[in-house]
Amino acid sequence: MQFTEALFAEHMRPITGSAIREIFKLLAKPGMISFAGGNPSNTALEPEVVSGLAQEALAKYGTSLLQYGATDGFNPFRESAAEFLRGSMVNCEAEDILPTQGGTQAFDVLLKALINPGDAVLCESPTFLGAIQAMREYNAKLVPMPTDHEGVIVEAAEELIKAHHPKLMYVIPTFQNPTGITLSLERRKALAQLASKYGVVIAEDDPYRDLRYSGEPLPTIQSFDEEGWVVYMSSFSKYVAPGLRVGAAAVRNPLLRRKMVIGKQSADTHSPLLTQAIVDAYLRKGLMPAHLARICGDYKVQLDAMLDGFKHFPEGTVHTVPQGGLFVWAALPEGMDAMKVFKAAVENNVAFVPGTHFYTEGGHMNTLRLNFSMSDIPTINAGMERLGRVIKEN
Amino acid sequence: MQFTEALFAEHMRPITGSAIREIFKLLAKPGMISFAGGNPSNTALEPEVVSGLAQEALAKYGTSLLQYGATDGFNPFRESAAEFLRGSMVNCEAEDILPTQGGTQAFDVLLKALINPGDAVLCESPTFLGAIQAMREYNAKLVPMPTDHEGVIVEAAEELIKAHHPKLMYVIPTFQNPTGITLSLERRKALAQLASKYGVVIAEDDPYRDLRYSGEPLPTIQSFDEEGWVVYMSSFSKYVAPGLRVGAAAVRNPLLRRKMVIGKQSADTHSPLLTQAIVDAYLRKGLMPAHLARICGDYKVQLDAMLDGFKHFPEGTVHTVPQGGLFVWAALPEGMDAMKVFKAAVENNVAFVPGTHFYTEGGHMNTLRLNFSMSDIPTINAGMERLGRVIKEN
Repeated sequence: MQFTEALFAEHMRPITGSAIREIFKLLAKPGMISFAGGNPSNTALEPEVVSGLAQEALAKYGTSLLQYGATDGFNPFRESAAEFLRGSMVNCEAEDILPTQGGTQAFDVLLKALINPGDAVLCESPTFLGAIQAMREYNAKLVPMPTDHEGVIVEAAEELIKAHHPKLMYVIPTFQNPTGITLSLERRKALAQLASKYGVVIAEDDPYRDLRYSGEPLPTIQSFDEEGWVVYMSSFSKYVAPGLRVGAAAVRNPLLRRKMVIGKQSADTHSPLLTQAIVDAYLRKGLMPAHLARICGDYKVQLDAMLDGFKHFPEGTVHTVPQGGLFVWAALPEGMDAMKVFKAAVENNVAFVPGTHFYTEGGHMNTLRLNFSMSDIPTINAGMERLGRVIKEN
Repeated sequence: MQFTEALFAEHMRPITGSAIREIFKLLAKPGMISFAGGNPSNTALEPEVVSGLAQEALAKYGTSLLQYGATDGFNPFRESAAEFLRGSMVNCEAEDILPTQGGTQAFDVLLKALINPGDAVLCESPTFLGAIQAMREYNAKLVPMPTDHEGVIVEAAEELIKAHHPKLMYVIPTFQNPTGITLSLERRKALAQLASKYGVVIAEDDPYRDLRYSGEPLPTIQSFDEEGWVVYMSSFSKYVAPGLRVGAAAVRNPLLRRKMVIGKQSADTHSPLLTQAIVDAYLRKGLMPAHLARICGDYKVQLDAMLDGFKHFPEGTVHTVPQGGLFVWAALPEGMDAMKVFKAAVENNVAFVPGTHFYTEGGHMNTLRLNFSMSDIPTINAGMERLGRVIKEN
């Protein structure tokens, strides 16, 4: 017998893998300037610190850190993560915290808990393409919500809820991926009210929150939720290290948390104890505030350089001016095709992600996402100049 | 709006979480002798060794160990895992290896790649209850295959294939969980032939293989597979440390491996690089052979003590005599109820897992699974004497 596509599950057939992760493979070319990724800067990573914390954790907990652990998570980390999240205006106690493999797994087990094939899920238009892939793997019906410079348009979201009766709404409220836009205070409050009014779970995906370079922090959507409809998903990937794969979801509804724990049980039994213990120690030693201050200082300068670099782009280009995060979003003059530009740009050793990948329905061919965290100032200057030239030539 | 059961996905409704993991919670009681778990002995775990390897890996790879990695896995670990598996008579190269979060995740992403709701999956009767839970979460139709003292009965399996057209067969060939039975050489060959003849993927779950205390190693089912129908799933949980959550699947069919990688992308992006690097260093330094010799020496004595302890059980009890692994399986005289015994046993501070949990269809109330790896000799002696007494009294 031969393997054929027909052997595979239907929900996997239309999915060809994350476009971004495929783009990454092109970027190994020497001399490439990449604005395509979403990684933290290498200068933000601290292998010596992590090494010291790993040693301390193994000395402190001994064999118990190497045995099987609870699916619910490593309790010291649940405590320190809850305290950290309370500092981000999340209402939670240690018992509400489910440690996950980055934010990715929090969304995966939430989908697993809730979604029957065909169930509607609302998401921002555009939104994170990893989330689009995850929702498709659960055969969800993706319903894009219109957005503007303040994020999701609440009235439109309410009409879509009435029309599609979604179980779930997926929102990245702060320095959104891909746009960099932050949901306004009033809209945060309003979305929490919609969740409760219509019985819709909100997945509040907030991994960039503490990468703020200007303006004041806003309360989370979760802080306006009285009934446990909002699942707050945080991650230490952008703050400490993505390679450790440590995230934390705050899930205040015990029934929902239980279903997510059961889903995680079958997915990976539990998260590694060592990686949870490393991030726990990082938090308990109080290393986070100074670290965030340092990396935000660097990222701010990088963002400013990228914003300045748009002077090389054709007239009629519009772009966001984010107050934080890792991304700037741009729309080239109507009629331009960022996919075509992408091919020419890669030949010229500069890369980005075409914006069409972030739309559930495709289209929007003139948009693009640019990352500034992985490039130093001379590289950003050179790359924006080069990219502007390639765009003008295409 | 209030949360109700109706909000959740249908595939999660009948699932209440692993019975074993719930039993674990009872075992915190002081003085409890537990034969219920499946953990390695604490004396088999080496926190100082792991600490040293973590330091070395972070010094060697620096920030690249903390950045995002490939979903396909950390290449040095793929190489060393492939070499390790070749030593276990698995046909594989580094490119065939998908690192996973323990064996659990290998099976989860394999199910995700293959199973539409209602698809049939064959499994041994009895089988690992975590696998039963995972298959149910994908709405698979579970079809139990009859087994005897040499494992799966091949003729019966072939009839079931003809009747149910399964996509997948799940087999634990060596020191099976829960029975401790090893699939014979001839049957390994025959199952590989069935897979190819009928186009059935075999999930060969082999995490206990190197915990052999007597007899000679047998070739894997995978070694008889010419066409890539067998996915070999190994894990370092029982050999190095379950808390690290490091497993490795050998998937020789590139299309199937690609689908599993895509499924893992949405599940957790990738496995932590640090934990993969620790196991990689463990293998490259050649620490495994002496470690396995030491722990197998200890486990052999523990197994022998447990087998001897059956002298305290009622006449008519039958039990397996495994050549390795972590478990012994027993059937009490017909009419006895291991669930009833379990309650009385826990009150008397001795625990095991009632065998009914390992049957997809329940029943088999007189069976039980006993673990010996977590108890020292005096504890095994005392526990078997106590358990024998409780059984006789019930």
